[in-house]
Amino acid sequence: LTKTAKIGVVGATGYTGIELCRLLADHPSATITHVYSRQYESQKVGQILPHLHHIADLTFERFDAHSHVDIDVLFLALPHGQAHEIIPKLKNKIPFIIDLSADFRLQDPEMFKYYYSLDHGAPDLIQETMYGLPELYRDKIKTATIIANPGCYPTCAILGLHPIAKQGWVQGTPVIDAKSGVSGAGRGAKESSLFCEVAGDFSPYGTGTHRHTPEMTDHLGISVLFSPHLVPMSRGMQATMYVDLAPEITESDIQNAYVTAYKNEPFVHIVTPSQIHTRSVAGTNHCFVSYVWTPQKLIVFSMIDNLIKGASGQAIQNMNILLGIDETTALRHTALWI
Amino acid sequence: LTKTAKIGVVGATGYTGIELCRLLADHPSATITHVYSRQYESQKVGQILPHLHHIADLTFERFDAHSHVDIDVLFLALPHGQAHEIIPKLKNKIPFIIDLSADFRLQDPEMFKYYYSLDHGAPDLIQETMYGLPELYRDKIKTATIIANPGCYPTCAILGLHPIAKQGWVQGTPVIDAKSGVSGAGRGAKESSLFCEVAGDFSPYGTGTHRHTPEMTDHLGISVLFSPHLVPMSRGMQATMYVDLAPEITESDIQNAYVTAYKNEPFVHIVTPSQIHTRSVAGTNHCFVSYVWTPQKLIVFSMIDNLIKGASGQAIQNMNILLGIDETTALRHTALWI
Amino acid sequence: LTKTAKIGVVGATGYTGIELCRLLADHPSATITHVYSRQYESQKVGQILPHLHHIADLTFERFDAHSHVDIDVLFLALPHGQAHEIIPKLKNKIPFIIDLSADFRLQDPEMFKYYYSLDHGAPDLIQETMYGLPELYRDKIKTATIIANPGCYPTCAILGLHPIAKQGWVQGTPVIDAKSGVSGAGRGAKESSLFCEVAGDFSPYGTGTHRHTPEMTDHLGISVLFSPHLVPMSRGMQATMYVDLAPEITESDIQNAYVTAYKNEPFVHIVTPSQIHTRSVAGTNHCFVSYVWTPQKLIVFSMIDNLIKGASGQAIQNMNILLGIDETTALRHTALWI
Amino acid sequence: LTKTAKIGVVGATGYTGIELCRLLADHPSATITHVYSRQYESQKVGQILPHLHHIADLTFERFDAHSHVDIDVLFLALPHGQAHEIIPKLKNKIPFIIDLSADFRLQDPEMFKYYYSLDHGAPDLIQETMYGLPELYRDKIKTATIIANPGCYPTCAILGLHPIAKQGWVQGTPVIDAKSGVSGAGRGAKESSLFCEVAGDFSPYGTGTHRHTPEMTDHLGISVLFSPHLVPMSRGMQATMYVDLAPEITESDIQNAYVTAYKNEPFVHIVTPSQIHTRSVAGTNHCFVSYVWTPQKLIVFSMIDNLIKGASGQAIQNMNILLGIDETTALRHTALWI
Repeated sequence: LTKTAKIGVVGATGYTGIELCRLLADHPSATITHVYSRQYESQKVGQILPHLHHIADLTFERFDAHSHVDIDVLFLALPHGQAHEIIPKLKNKIPFIIDLSADFRLQDPEMFKYYYSLDHGAPDLIQETMYGLPELYRDKIKTATIIANPGCYPTCAILGLHPIAKQGWVQGTPVIDAKSGVSGAGRGAKESSLFCEVAGDFSPYGTGTHRHTPEMTDHLGISVLFSPHLVPMSRGMQATMYVDLAPEITESDIQNAYVTAYKNEPFVHIVTPSQIHTRSVAGTNHCFVSYVWTPQKLIVFSMIDNLIKGASGQAIQNMNILLGIDETTALRHTALWI
Repeated sequence: LTKTAKIGVVGATGYTGIELCRLLADHPSATITHVYSRQYESQKVGQILPHLHHIADLTFERFDAHSHVDIDVLFLALPHGQAHEIIPKLKNKIPFIIDLSADFRLQDPEMFKYYYSLDHGAPDLIQETMYGLPELYRDKIKTATIIANPGCYPTCAILGLHPIAKQGWVQGTPVIDAKSGVSGAGRGAKESSLFCEVAGDFSPYGTGTHRHTPEMTDHLGISVLFSPHLVPMSRGMQATMYVDLAPEITESDIQNAYVTAYKNEPFVHIVTPSQIHTRSVAGTNHCFVSYVWTPQKLIVFSMIDNLIKGASGQAIQNMNILLGIDETTALRHTALWI
Repeated sequence: LTKTAKIGVVGATGYTGIELCRLLADHPSATITHVYSRQYESQKVGQILPHLHHIADLTFERFDAHSHVDIDVLFLALPHGQAHEIIPKLKNKIPFIIDLSADFRLQDPEMFKYYYSLDHGAPDLIQETMYGLPELYRDKIKTATIIANPGCYPTCAILGLHPIAKQGWVQGTPVIDAKSGVSGAGRGAKESSLFCEVAGDFSPYGTGTHRHTPEMTDHLGISVLFSPHLVPMSRGMQATMYVDLAPEITESDIQNAYVTAYKNEPFVHIVTPSQIHTRSVAGTNHCFVSYVWTPQKLIVFSMIDNLIKGASGQAIQNMNILLGIDETTALRHTALWI
Repeated sequence: LTKTAKIGVVGATGYTGIELCRLLADHPSATITHVYSRQYESQKVGQILPHLHHIADLTFERFDAHSHVDIDVLFLALPHGQAHEIIPKLKNKIPFIIDLSADFRLQDPEMFKYYYSLDHGAPDLIQETMYGLPELYRDKIKTATIIANPGCYPTCAILGLHPIAKQGWVQGTPVIDAKSGVSGAGRGAKESSLFCEVAGDFSPYGTGTHRHTPEMTDHLGISVLFSPHLVPMSRGMQATMYVDLAPEITESDIQNAYVTAYKNEPFVHIVTPSQIHTRSVAGTNHCFVSYVWTPQKLIVFSMIDNLIKGASGQAIQNMNILLGIDETTALRHTALWI
């Protein structure tokens, strides 16, 4: 790439939008030229988010899908239910669109309706979008123009189970007991996300009914029992998964499957179980995977930073693939760790 | 009881010891007369733990199992591996002994050796001690003199599963995915318990090998897959348990089993899944239990304050039973909640 | 008191309202008969706040100042700006009213207008209300019928400085550098109170302009420079205060002043500086005060639980005084500490 | 610089050592070749600190000041009291030494003895070392070979007050009320740094006696009253400073002083008071400074990440100056923010 891609971020003052802006600060081939925020329209970024030095002088604009803008890659970091109305209007105006919401993640518009209580506004566009999980679909992403960026829980769970699910080794319905930091709930001002409601508390929610379930099922090709929980920390996500395997599968089969699946992946690492600490990937696009073989079950651990590999980092990884540049560009952070 | 019981606390400056002292402050029929701490020997409680106003003038003593003391109930709040050497020396000198460690929890001294790497110092005493889980063994506790106070994880898991396990409805090996606040690791100065190591972090540990597993198996009568995790909060414990049921068991059977089991229990409450927030029992001796019935599994939630129902509160509940007084005495706290 | 006082709590689902309900659970001479909440009108307390077992069966009502209710003591736990319109309507209908808001705290309605941007709705009632800081005004509270319950910061600062300010020993304008847990911001769903905005963050706010400043000035009789900060914890408040003293004042004068002021106070304790940890008063109505004498300044430390001595606990302390019962009733908690 | 500097880190598994390793991962002109840790001698970095991918294959060595190593820049990230014995042995063997401890920070060995209770082992070397605060001493650092890297509190306080102190405008003794995250206490396993002791707690400590006081006095040229506090967060440091100014100094003088002092500084930024949130500099080498002018005092706010600008980041900034390369190399991070 000889020229720099011009980047727009819609929803730039939500957590995933802010994270996109942060990560793009270091990108040598992409420059943020437009940031959109209804709440802070006409204010300077530097006034609202003083840590974003590199775009301090940009002004938040109100996004209008009908007006023309000179943007190469547009990131939509909006709540669910908006992108399916916006993207049809942008289709031929912007070369690449990366949608961080759920609107184009499910293949079946009926499933979208079931889980999000909305009629899908562009069902015929669904087939044109690509589910942006590079470890599974890298080649197809290369030729896509619209990316449905995966959810955080599906990214974490799929990367953990895919090496064995694709072999057909999983029997029955595995349990995905997952735990997320609070940033997964977004920046909306909700009572349930207040510091005093969350600090010192741990709770399950949405057991068996969470919207991310069909995404997992679609891409793993197996049914799963998804059971999420909320952890009193800002970022980080970990899944402990309990899997019954076909009886002929040996521990060595498992090891081979994981090593083979990820040996060339820049962001997925097989580690020991004692290395599964969410802070070891905090602030990075990495996913750590581990497992314990027991007489009863295979127990698989997977963990990511929900805002990075689970959202904005993966979105930039997808952008890098779309632009034909090194997939790790601007994503080579070392974890902050503490 | 017309007279006040004289209470001694050994290990009074660890978290469970401090919690015992706190809870006993309000007890109308028990008075702390001796507090033991090697680390703070000869210092006043008020200097070391200024919030314990009621015993500010007591002096920490060094505990000596050979000397005579006038104590009615002795609590041993020591790390594992000490009580099995101490209790034989105290047996006929102190009417009631309540051991908060693991030393007398397992029925089989071989299991103790396997899990704690120690030869049990008093295997013949094991049969004389009673496992102090009142909801299962209230009548036997009434006539005991030595109580093995249950572990926090076993209390949480057993109270969650016992109503269905005792019916013989559980098939296979249920998964117990449990999460604990950091106080479960005790007050010892370990790197892994430092604020900076734990804050903002979530991690699994001891998957399938944790020492609390045989306690669960002993009292549930079924094998379990126990999978604990560490949560960045000081107190609180929650278990999400995944159970395969015999196919003929209906949701109504389940409801009846739980309601019947706990309708007269002062500290166990059946709540809705959305009410499973550890802060709702923080600072109390309560256990909240809930469940979700899915086509694949029964999912059971259980939660306690690991330091209270999981340790010191349950120890006092046991003491109340031993003394023949109202079991809820000094344990009627309302959760601090935030 | 032979009969039990009937208690109403308006704003029962805010943090101070919930805390009132919690603390009153143990009160032997007061029973909550009415809880008011617009947000949860017609719902059972047990559904919304499952930890409040003692009032689980009460139903949240919409408060109507015009209707008649049989209540002996009404607590108003509302945001600022409502009580000054409500209380005039209730005056002769309810024997005792305790207002936890700022509406009647300032003597001068012009100051109220300046700091709260509101015309005071009942300026002639201000003189009839009593500022409910028992350590300064116990005798006057005994004969009052309307109590303006002090703010959290003023309680903390005034208890720290009053023993020396009343002697006329303070020179110039002391600095009150104060730090509060997040619950001080209330339970309203604001972005700035979200877990992710607060966790891992420390910040000053309202330096020199905070609304609690005139309350301090009124009751200390000196000007102060008040500088508050936000701490990533749910409850707790600590003030470090820097005071220039008249040169003739000795360290022994200071010691005498503090000991004399608080030797008979059940809730204020002089401790060593190393004992100033907010968790040592967390969950209690206690205030710990300490000081360091330096060649340059007297440094005074004061700390409280902002929700208890800084709000709901002090409100109950005031109620106890109004009812003529032991001031410490239902307020004898030992700190949860961790 | 055409060749890459070979870097050694002694104390590589403490918090500042780990942070040095993290920051150097991105450095284009420096490569870590030796990491020293007594605790983890002979183990691979990747086993102990799996997030440090770039040095996963290095092995922790035991540092021996007597053996020869081919290192261009040696960082000493050790507890106080070791470097003053080590550095004399290394002087002519290693081109550049950067000591992150306090051993060479104080000009006067008597002060070192007073504050650290140690006879200084190399008093004649003190004059050869340079206090590494680039904003004050950039030119002198350029020609130094041994750097005494400043303490976290002094960095924060001096950067806040230096612009006005150097003008001679400060009257009397300013108050420096400072608050630090827990990582400032290091990674040693101490009870007072345990999660349960710190979470939910706020406390002052070392008021008027803290060891960092003489560092501030040395470099500000005025006496100060230093009053530190501990905040329940891992990283971050904020100081609120109360200054009496000479009466003729206007607000405009103040503004000019700050703007002039820092307009060309890459890491110090004048912001509004509402932008003083420690998370806005978390993970960066930036220092944010702000102030409020009141009729009584000038109130100055300063904040840094205590592990970066307060320790390891500043150490690398000093290294960059010593190596004659761009001072911001490897230090251009955008704050993680949440």
